[in-house]
Formats: sequence, structure tokens, C-alpha cells
Amino acid sequence: MRDDFPRHLAKELDAADPLADLRDRFVIADDDLIYLDGNSLGRLPAATPAHLDRLVREGWGDGLVRSWPTWIEWGRRIGDRLAAHALGARPGEVVVSDSTSVNLYKLAAAALDAAGDRRTVLVDAEDFPTDRYVLEGLAAARGLTLRLLPSDLDEGLRLDELRAALDGDVALVLLSAVAYRSGALLDMAAVNAAARQVGATVLWDLSHAVGSVPVELAATGADLAVGCTYKYLNGGPGAPAFLYVRRELQSRLRQPIQGWFGRRDQFGMGPGYDPAPDLDRFLVGTPSILALAPLDPALDVLAEAGIDRVRAKGRRLGELIVTLADAWLTPHGFRVASPREADRRGSHVCLHHPEALRISRALAEAGVVGDYRAPDRLRLGPAPLYTRYVDVWDALDRLRGLAERRGWERVPGGPSRVT
Amino acid sequence: MRDDFPRHLAKELDAADPLADLRDRFVIADDDLIYLDGNSLGRLPAATPAHLDRLVREGWGDGLVRSWPTWIEWGRRIGDRLAAHALGARPGEVVVSDSTSVNLYKLAAAALDAAGDRRTVLVDAEDFPTDRYVLEGLAAARGLTLRLLPSDLDEGLRLDELRAALDGDVALVLLSAVAYRSGALLDMAAVNAAARQVGATVLWDLSHAVGSVPVELAATGADLAVGCTYKYLNGGPGAPAFLYVRRELQSRLRQPIQGWFGRRDQFGMGPGYDPAPDLDRFLVGTPSILALAPLDPALDVLAEAGIDRVRAKGRRLGELIVTLADAWLTPHGFRVASPREADRRGSHVCLHHPEALRISRALAEAGVVGDYRAPDRLRLGPAPLYTRYVDVWDALDRLRGLAERRGWERVPGGPSRVT
Repeated sequence: MRDDFPRHLAKELDAADPLADLRDRFVIADDDLIYLDGNSLGRLPAATPAHLDRLVREGWGDGLVRSWPTWIEWGRRIGDRLAAHALGARPGEVVVSDSTSVNLYKLAAAALDAAGDRRTVLVDAEDFPTDRYVLEGLAAARGLTLRLLPSDLDEGLRLDELRAALDGDVALVLLSAVAYRSGALLDMAAVNAAARQVGATVLWDLSHAVGSVPVELAATGADLAVGCTYKYLNGGPGAPAFLYVRRELQSRLRQPIQGWFGRRDQFGMGPGYDPAPDLDRFLVGTPSILALAPLDPALDVLAEAGIDRVRAKGRRLGELIVTLADAWLTPHGFRVASPREADRRGSHVCLHHPEALRISRALAEAGVVGDYRAPDRLRLGPAPLYTRYVDVWDALDRLRGLAERRGWERVPGGPSRVT
Repeated sequence: MRDDFPRHLAKELDAADPLADLRDRFVIADDDLIYLDGNSLGRLPAATPAHLDRLVREGWGDGLVRSWPTWIEWGRRIGDRLAAHALGARPGEVVVSDSTSVNLYKLAAAALDAAGDRRTVLVDAEDFPTDRYVLEGLAAARGLTLRLLPSDLDEGLRLDELRAALDGDVALVLLSAVAYRSGALLDMAAVNAAARQVGATVLWDLSHAVGSVPVELAATGADLAVGCTYKYLNGGPGAPAFLYVRRELQSRLRQPIQGWFGRRDQFGMGPGYDPAPDLDRFLVGTPSILALAPLDPALDVLAEAGIDRVRAKGRRLGELIVTLADAWLTPHGFRVASPREADRRGSHVCLHHPEALRISRALAEAGVVGDYRAPDRLRLGPAPLYTRYVDVWDALDRLRGLAERRGWERVPGGPSRVT
């Protein structure tokens, strides 16, 4: 079977790859390691250690508190860079702050509190856990009904399922643009239009989309979004998240965590909370500057690549996984558990196998880092900025080797703790 | 007047200072700069740049996602270190996460939601803005009455004012152990006892106390606390905050931001939110590992010093400020705007002057960094780990020189933006 797609074809794809040189912009400490988990934690950009060290020594060590007038703009400044290079949003619509979960809470609460007497909240039943949990808590506190939209673990949410659930009672819909397991990609423009028809607000979780597919928040008519920066954006472990609020909505929404960074004239420190007139009202407390700093060198690489070229390569890397999995793995009980058409998929691909947990561990021992997602999925995320076609070929080849000898049977199962 | 306390006496205090050698454990880039703003942003520990660089290159660059099983414990592990070295709390009672403002929101909401039909919330009218704003939002959302306790800008809250306001209708009291302007130190044991008598819960903000005075959460019977790590703890700009929940309360309180890090069996990613049985239920989203990392070398220095020695030196540094301000500055219209007794003061001292903003700027130009706090205070925070007695002497001497020639009159006023 291996002859169906010989390795030299992957090498030829690399030779023709316009992004190939960008691999050198990342730290590749172990060239034998095949890293297909950039959708969980992106690699370290080569410029980041020196950038961070300079910030620590000069900004903190020498500048001390005198650096704050610069630092205090970083959440907005980096938000504007994200808006321009990855999100298709306007200046002043994106800010980096807090975690994705906290941002989900703030924006969902703001939307629900502005939704009048609408009583229904919709979320994809298979959405990432924190999305479901945050909404569950907000809905319960307000006596609202949380409806879980039935969704296919392989194919994602069907638009007709969503349309059937949308009516004048729906306050808020929370959806992921790219599903965290299957990689299923939603048509954001179609979803936004359908929700608008019934007056519902859509809150997008872009965690698995940002930096891998062009997100056009303005062009698709998006109102609210959040997302994380440590996956395809390569911001570092637990890097702060972003939030987006369409400019026209900012003054009409209020979030409930009334911290001093959200107040008009913050440093007046006056009595009573008066929300800032703009996006600042969605801020809360003092941001970590060391956590924000790595986003600059990371965005430099993305800006140089261009999100459209990233997407083009991501499609082809995904197609290569699907092609090789069909040829080499399906006979061994694997199934491609993602949409088969590249147009309906983000930049990662899921494989189903009942022994996915053990397989992911055996694969790691064989030098391929993907990740396991409950209950029975192996997720492969070939981040386009630094993953070669030949890496995908080699990873699937090693997986085929494991499959042929059932090389995971001696590997322990048991609890998994990977973010 | 200068002869009242000649400079060589300050040098002698330094020669006898058991913590004097610890100054070398910090980066002192400019030995002419006198930094009295460690209560706003602590200095950079000398071990931090290499510690962080190693984390970035090895933990992130080489380890990649495989480092998460270690990282995911850091919030709790560092929380336990804080508990042991600075907070007088037990293991499993302190965790580092989010910002102080977000932690205030979580713990205050949890306390209010458990307070039955009590309808009153108390906060020091002069408390740090974010404390007042967060409570204002929570109280309004629940239809509760927020009462501002009258408090003296110089002397802090009087216990009899608090006692007069405490009754069976009080759900929650939010107080700072050390006031952010005056440095007034509250008697935590007395406050906790008074609140307990009427069944009210106290939430402590320890931001200006932690790392400067011994906080004995267990011994004083404290229930809830939050605080920041970038002041006397030297964790870096915007370093993540901590929260404390007394062990016996943990399973009885629920906070409203239901993120995945707060769920029992987080990586099961199951349906429905089920809060972790312990302190983990107060977590929300993925923590920034780069923001957490500097707390380890910072706590190493604090542990070596010992909080009691830090406190002893902090008292004397404060006394020196008061002595010199009385002798040199009072004739020029300054007033010590902090409790005069060291027992009633944390490690910073405030000076009142109508031109405080301009004075703080002129003083910075003269090589002394303190900070301005609205409306008319100059705050001097001589962090004991790295501030010499002679630094305080020199700072007050330069301030005296400014006062003699009214050297701030050519300096512009206008908005201030310092965290």
C-alpha cells in the first residue's frame, strides 16, 4: 500500500511549498520529532526567547514601573495586530486579555443581559467543554434554558439543525468556528445571517480557527468572538486569550466583572463604576506582560506568511492525512473522523479508533506527537507554518507501522491530562 | 535640619541589616536610581531571566505539549509555596490563577450566593478601586445594598466603624489588610472575629500585605482572600494573582465562572459541569505558564529572607521615612498621611501634599521612583528585600532639596497612568 503515495511525492510538495522557509523561524530542537500538535500548543518561534529576555531585562529590570505606560497599551495593540492579520476585524474591535473561558463568560453574560425576555441559549452539544460549562452556569443563574444542539462527532453541526432550533426565543448561540475534535468548519456568514433573522446573537469560539483559517469577522457579520492564542498563533503555553466585540455593539453591552481596567478614566480611581465607552469595558484586571510579549514575534511570522497561504497549505496537509489514512489505516480499523472535503475542515484531522488513547501514547513513543481526545479520537494538527508534507508522510507511515503490529497493545491506558 | 539624622547613621543601619546581602539577588541596573515603588512593581530577581529562558527554551521549545502534565500543577504548587512562606495557610488552600480582580469576583460571588437572605455588602469607602467596582457590580446584579464604610485616608478604617456596621444582614465584608494609599494595617484577627459574631464572611484583599507583613490566614481565622504577586512578591508585571479559600469552606462555595479547569475530572471533558471537590473549583481557564514561572525564583528569595525579617526591616524603613519626613518635609507643607505607629502600618508610607502629582514627577527626574496616588498623595514603598536605609535617606534628602526650591513648579500636571 505504501507505494500508493511514495515519500518522494511529499518531498516534492515541500520543495514547491512557498512557506517552506518559515520552518526556520521556529525552534526545532529535535529534528526526529514529528510534532502534529500545533493545534494544542504551537511551537516556539525562534525570535521569542530573545524578545522575551529583552523585555524581562530591559522593560522590567531596568524600566521597572516606568514601563507601564507602554505596557498598558499592549492588549489593545496586539489585539489590533490580530484583527489585521488573522481575524478580519477593524482596529479597536479585538483586545487580548484573560483566558478564553473568562472571556466566554464576559461576552456571553453581556449578550444575555442585553437579550430582553428571550429565554433560550444554544450551544453545540459536542463543543469544547469549557464553552458548554460556562454557558450552563450563566443560563442556570438567569433561569434560562440551555439547549444542546445535536452535532455529529465526525461531521460537526449541520446548518439545518441550527436553523431548526433558531426562533424568537433564542438569546444567544455559542459555536466554535472549527470543532475541536473533528475540525469541522462552520460557515460563519451563513450562521450569522440565520441568527440575525431571528434576532439572536452569535458568540464565536475561534480557538481552533484563528491562525489556521482566514476568519473574516467583519465580512461575515460577526458580533462577538473569543479565542486562544497558544495554538496556531504560537503565543506560548496558556498565553492570554482575545475577545472581539463588533464596534457598533460595544457601547450597548456590559459585562459583569467590573474591574478597574474596564472603567472610564481608570487612573482617576474615582467612586462608582462607569464603564469605558469602548472595547476597554470588556477588560478586568492587570494583564500579564510576560504572557503578552511572545505574541509579537509570533504574529510577525504569521504576518509574513499571510493567512491565505497558511490556509492553502493547511488544506493540503489535511488532504494528505486523509489520503494516507484511507490508504494505510482504514484496513486496520481506523476511520477518518473529520469532514472529508477540505472546504469543510480547519487545519487538523481526527482519526477514530477504539484504542485511540493507547495509540496516541504509542505514537508518541515512536516520535510523533499528536493528541488524544475523549472518547476515542486521535487528533493530528499539522500547523502549516512549520510542518512539512514529509512530516505528515512520516507520521502516517509510523502510525501504519504501529497498526500493522498493533504496537499499542503493551501501552497503558488510564487518565489523560493534556490541555 | 539635616544634621538631625546624618547619612552615616543610615549607612550604619545597612551595615547591621541581616537582609543586606539579598540586594544582590536582584537586578540593580542603575545604582543611582532609588526605587521606592516595589509596592507597585517589585524588582526583577537576578535568577529570573535565566529561569524563564530555560522554561521557554526547554519547557516550551523542546518539551512542547509534553510539558503540560508538569505545568498544570504549577498554580497549586506555587500556591502552596505562597501559603507556606507568606500567607500562613495550609497546603491546598491557596492557588495562583487569573487576576486579582477576577479572583475578587469569583470569591465575592461565591460568598454572596451562599449567604442566604442577607442583603448587605460592606466595603471600605477608600479601598482600591477594583475592589469597590467589583462588589458594586455583584451587589447590583443581586439587588443587594452596598454600603461604603467611612474610612480615614491617612489612618484607614477604624474597627469601631466596622463593628457599628456589622449586623445579621451583612453577607460579605471586603477589606484590604494593608490600605493601598495610607498603608494602614488592619487587625485581621479582630475583624474576622467581629464578622463571625454576626455570621458575615470577610474577603481579604492582601495585595499590599503579601510579602511585606506576615499574613496569618489560618491563625487569624480568615475565610477568603485574594492578592497580587507583582508587588512585594516580585513576580513580574501583571503576574497572576492568588486566591485563598479556607479548606472547610471549599466544598460549600461555588463560583460562577464555570470553566473547564474548575470541573471534577477536567480531562474527561464530560457533559455537564460538576465542580471539583476542592480548591480547583475556583479555577477557570488555562493559566499562562510564562506568567507563573517567575514566581519560583521570586519566592526563593522571600523564603531565604523569612517574612518575619522582612517585616522587621520594613517597619524600620517606614520609621525612617516618618522620622525624616517630620524633620525635613513638614516645614514645606508635607504631611505624613499614614498611621504613625509602625504596628499599624504595612511597608509603605504616604505623604500628603497638594502638589503630589507634580512632586512625584519631579522626584522621578531627580532619580527617585515613588508613585502618585489620587488625589494628593505621594507613596513611598521601600521594599525590604532590596532597599537600603541609605536609599531612604537619599530619597528623602532629594525630596527635601526639591521642597526647598519648590522644584516641581516647572513640571507638568495632567493625567497619570501608573498601575
